[in-house]
Amino acid sequence: MFSAVHPPDDPHLAASDPEPSRSEFKERLWAIIFEAETPSGKFFDVALLWVIGISVLAVMLESVESIHRQYHQPLLVVEWICTVVFTVEYILRIWLVRRPRRYIFSFYGIVDLLSCLPSYLALIFTGGSHFIVIRLLRLLRMFRVLKMVGHVRGANTILRGLAASRAKITVFFFSMLIFAMLAGTLIYIVESGEPGTAFTSIPVSIYYAIVSITTVGYGDLAAQTVLGRLITALMVLAGYAIIAVPTGIVASDMVREALHPDESTDACPGCGAHGHLNDAVYCRKCGELLDD
Amino acid sequence: MFSAVHPPDDPHLAASDPEPSRSEFKERLWAIIFEAETPSGKFFDVALLWVIGISVLAVMLESVESIHRQYHQPLLVVEWICTVVFTVEYILRIWLVRRPRRYIFSFYGIVDLLSCLPSYLALIFTGGSHFIVIRLLRLLRMFRVLKMVGHVRGANTILRGLAASRAKITVFFFSMLIFAMLAGTLIYIVESGEPGTAFTSIPVSIYYAIVSITTVGYGDLAAQTVLGRLITALMVLAGYAIIAVPTGIVASDMVREALHPDESTDACPGCGAHGHLNDAVYCRKCGELLDD
Amino acid sequence: MFSAVHPPDDPHLAASDPEPSRSEFKERLWAIIFEAETPSGKFFDVALLWVIGISVLAVMLESVESIHRQYHQPLLVVEWICTVVFTVEYILRIWLVRRPRRYIFSFYGIVDLLSCLPSYLALIFTGGSHFIVIRLLRLLRMFRVLKMVGHVRGANTILRGLAASRAKITVFFFSMLIFAMLAGTLIYIVESGEPGTAFTSIPVSIYYAIVSITTVGYGDLAAQTVLGRLITALMVLAGYAIIAVPTGIVASDMVREALHPDESTDACPGCGAHGHLNDAVYCRKCGELLDD
Amino acid sequence: MFSAVHPPDDPHLAASDPEPSRSEFKERLWAIIFEAETPSGKFFDVALLWVIGISVLAVMLESVESIHRQYHQPLLVVEWICTVVFTVEYILRIWLVRRPRRYIFSFYGIVDLLSCLPSYLALIFTGGSHFIVIRLLRLLRMFRVLKMVGHVRGANTILRGLAASRAKITVFFFSMLIFAMLAGTLIYIVESGEPGTAFTSIPVSIYYAIVSITTVGYGDLAAQTVLGRLITALMVLAGYAIIAVPTGIVASDMVREALHPDESTDACPGCGAHGHLNDAVYCRKCGELLDD
Repeated sequence: MFSAVHPPDDPHLAASDPEPSRSEFKERLWAIIFEAETPSGKFFDVALLWVIGISVLAVMLESVESIHRQYHQPLLVVEWICTVVFTVEYILRIWLVRRPRRYIFSFYGIVDLLSCLPSYLALIFTGGSHFIVIRLLRLLRMFRVLKMVGHVRGANTILRGLAASRAKITVFFFSMLIFAMLAGTLIYIVESGEPGTAFTSIPVSIYYAIVSITTVGYGDLAAQTVLGRLITALMVLAGYAIIAVPTGIVASDMVREALHPDESTDACPGCGAHGHLNDAVYCRKCGELLDD
Repeated sequence: MFSAVHPPDDPHLAASDPEPSRSEFKERLWAIIFEAETPSGKFFDVALLWVIGISVLAVMLESVESIHRQYHQPLLVVEWICTVVFTVEYILRIWLVRRPRRYIFSFYGIVDLLSCLPSYLALIFTGGSHFIVIRLLRLLRMFRVLKMVGHVRGANTILRGLAASRAKITVFFFSMLIFAMLAGTLIYIVESGEPGTAFTSIPVSIYYAIVSITTVGYGDLAAQTVLGRLITALMVLAGYAIIAVPTGIVASDMVREALHPDESTDACPGCGAHGHLNDAVYCRKCGELLDD
Repeated sequence: MFSAVHPPDDPHLAASDPEPSRSEFKERLWAIIFEAETPSGKFFDVALLWVIGISVLAVMLESVESIHRQYHQPLLVVEWICTVVFTVEYILRIWLVRRPRRYIFSFYGIVDLLSCLPSYLALIFTGGSHFIVIRLLRLLRMFRVLKMVGHVRGANTILRGLAASRAKITVFFFSMLIFAMLAGTLIYIVESGEPGTAFTSIPVSIYYAIVSITTVGYGDLAAQTVLGRLITALMVLAGYAIIAVPTGIVASDMVREALHPDESTDACPGCGAHGHLNDAVYCRKCGELLDD
Repeated sequence: MFSAVHPPDDPHLAASDPEPSRSEFKERLWAIIFEAETPSGKFFDVALLWVIGISVLAVMLESVESIHRQYHQPLLVVEWICTVVFTVEYILRIWLVRRPRRYIFSFYGIVDLLSCLPSYLALIFTGGSHFIVIRLLRLLRMFRVLKMVGHVRGANTILRGLAASRAKITVFFFSMLIFAMLAGTLIYIVESGEPGTAFTSIPVSIYYAIVSITTVGYGDLAAQTVLGRLITALMVLAGYAIIAVPTGIVASDMVREALHPDESTDACPGCGAHGHLNDAVYCRKCGELLDD
């Protein structure tokens, strides 16, 4: 999801110098659809945001039984207007970009296709409530538009922070998942003997452990025995302590990057030396290859 | 709400040098109502805090059925005494400030008006339980009084930290909302087929997703199917990881500001150079305009 | 509670140089009871920790109906043995310290008295289940013993961090409480009209708002209307963002103190200059009085 | 659990220079089983990860009633294949390491034994559902394999951060536990008088307090009286503030270590001097012994 935020790597979307051989009309269209600097480009972006928002709202409202019964017709009209807008936009984008094939198979190309396809498919296959989630993928399109409107630097900082902490967060999650599996099994053994227990299997108990450690605690499952509650209390306290770890990791990596933006966070795997520059590939002390 | 904490921008409230042409009585009143340095000014502030607290308590207690039936009369008396105090104070403030119009339409001027108006309106329009929330806006008045009594620097640090992280927190929330919408829709598709399910529509399922990701977890809605619980577990783990991000952002921005109070947190949008002074408008490296 | 952790300010407890005029026996007792360096002093501390733990456990177990019925006699015996140990220790402490009056009215003196008094009072007044919580105050005694055994520096760091962030945390809580009051009232107005609603009064709704913002979410109260759920979702998201603020404050203050232990966190209220030494009373730039 | 992540201290597992007197076959087997650099070694690690994953999944699925009834035979077969693989691997490891006794009694030696033993024991003792949790200890074996595949540095950073904050986190937890015990007892006194209350004993009430302070909030227990809800609200707000403390501690210690990797976090217990090198045993200012 996050990688969706900065697609400027895709040259078809970011490129602002279309070939001079293009017709003037095509260039003007390009500026409107792909850029946000001109007034008309900005207007196009804002208008598209509204269309996306309205179409998503329509899909959501249609799932409400009472609204569906009363306002099915107008919602269907809204849905089709949005679909047509998205289809026209999709065709224009293919026509405008230099390498249509690369756009079509890019992340946003697929999202754009999925934005209009389900409505047409629903004409052919009836009863396709499963197309709904695909329609809601339209939300992802908002990221592209937002990218041009602003707020990108904030996103980049978040992404850089997450990227710097990636390895640590992976280890952290793996440890937590194993912890949840062991704790869940323990609770299953303790609680499953009780008459009328909700802990009917180990997977269900692991679900309970995860919901507890993350401090969500729905209460649909709850320990009833003294021992089960004791284990839960210990597990929950551990979860409370554990939350401090990823937060500390992210915070420390962000502080580090803010203070020494040119230094890498990682130590050399060979000699443990710190303070390598971000673009360093080999350790400046022992010559060992630094990984990513 | 937070912007309410530091209204020293409003010259009528902060100005401590009233015009010399004012009468001595007016000046003394000014010192009592608008300042906190003199003993009488401090006494006025503390007394006002008590009146606000009592009037808010009265409004709250009156909503309790049993108390309303038994103590309606005394609570009504308290309510009216407070209203009269607020009205007198409001009129005095208008009379004392140099530019009454600006005070009346300032944030605190409107809050002050709303503190006394509902009681009078309730005389005309009966059955106005909707005036209650307006009456509770009196709570906001506490900020003004507190501003003078102390604690302001703490508030300023919080506000500066929030302001520095604003763009990042906006991106963060937008991403989380879209995540909740997609996850909620997924759960709706999985769970809505079950007999007697509580996931009756997409908006309800998104409400469930938000309540889960933020680790609140009321339990009024809870996944029943195996797949629904699996999605919930993954969603909840993601929410647990996500909480680390805004915390890390705020912490890192605050650390940065604490260590280098004169440096801006942001990189140049043009060349990416770091370490601009806070009052810098253009990048010192490439001359690009730095945004706020 | 936290201020209980470091009572070395109390000279009677920390002083390790008893007057030379004391008898040798008294001095040896002093070393055992008040110090932890000698083997016998360490043994005394560990033994006392066990007695405190056992007596607290006994009080807790006696509240369990089934255990109370079956094991009332043995628990009573344990209770009385502990009480006698605490009484003897209390009398010895009074006898040993140089200024008994100051010890008796010190924080730990009162806790020590409350550790043994309730058992005697229960002989006179029957049916005193309200003495239970007083008995559990014995737990506070653990802090004193732990102080001598170790871990004190950890506690001091936590306390210093909390002290540095005090003003900011106060502002933060005040803001959050007012936010909870406004949100709770809003939900009361929206939900109270529903038949069979649990939101019967404003205080109850504020309780719901607090439980939601802090992400606890018991689920005994839960919004049923669409509008109520929308407000809840927004409130909960706000609470999720808000948690980042105190964490960031504490983390940044701790980092600051760790990196520049001699520098104060606060800016001058007069000229805003940073980086004052911790023992500075006046701003080094403008001479303004720095508060605490 | 965390200490399981870095067992390179165990020379039998980390040693990559087997004695030259070994047969070539034995050396090649060593490289496959104990190392991850060669293609066959990497393949062995990945294959082992899959076998561990499948065996754990089989144990979990067998606990689901409906799956157990239908797929008992195939799951039993999977279980036995995995057990044989683990047994062969265990015997090979004993045969390969230089000091088998030390391997057998090492942490991973015991985990390896427990991975295959329960299946054989279940043949002798019937109805041993309590062996399940032992079987799930196989999950711990994943750490060893992962250690070789990568991610170790992330784990080391987490462990170092936790180790640096150990003393503080201990104090923090002790304080929180005592806080939960006092708050739970208070709620017990307030709520236990209500008819049909769920707060039947002090331990149950402490369970409620822990679940509340950690913001889990299942809702199986919930305060019903006004006073009980007031205490809960205060307790929950305190818990919300408290979470900031361990996070701040971990974050600050991690930032400190990231910025000054050679400096110890701790101050001298004798003179309070900061900035000791990590390998310092005595204070450089006053010569006092620094504890770990």
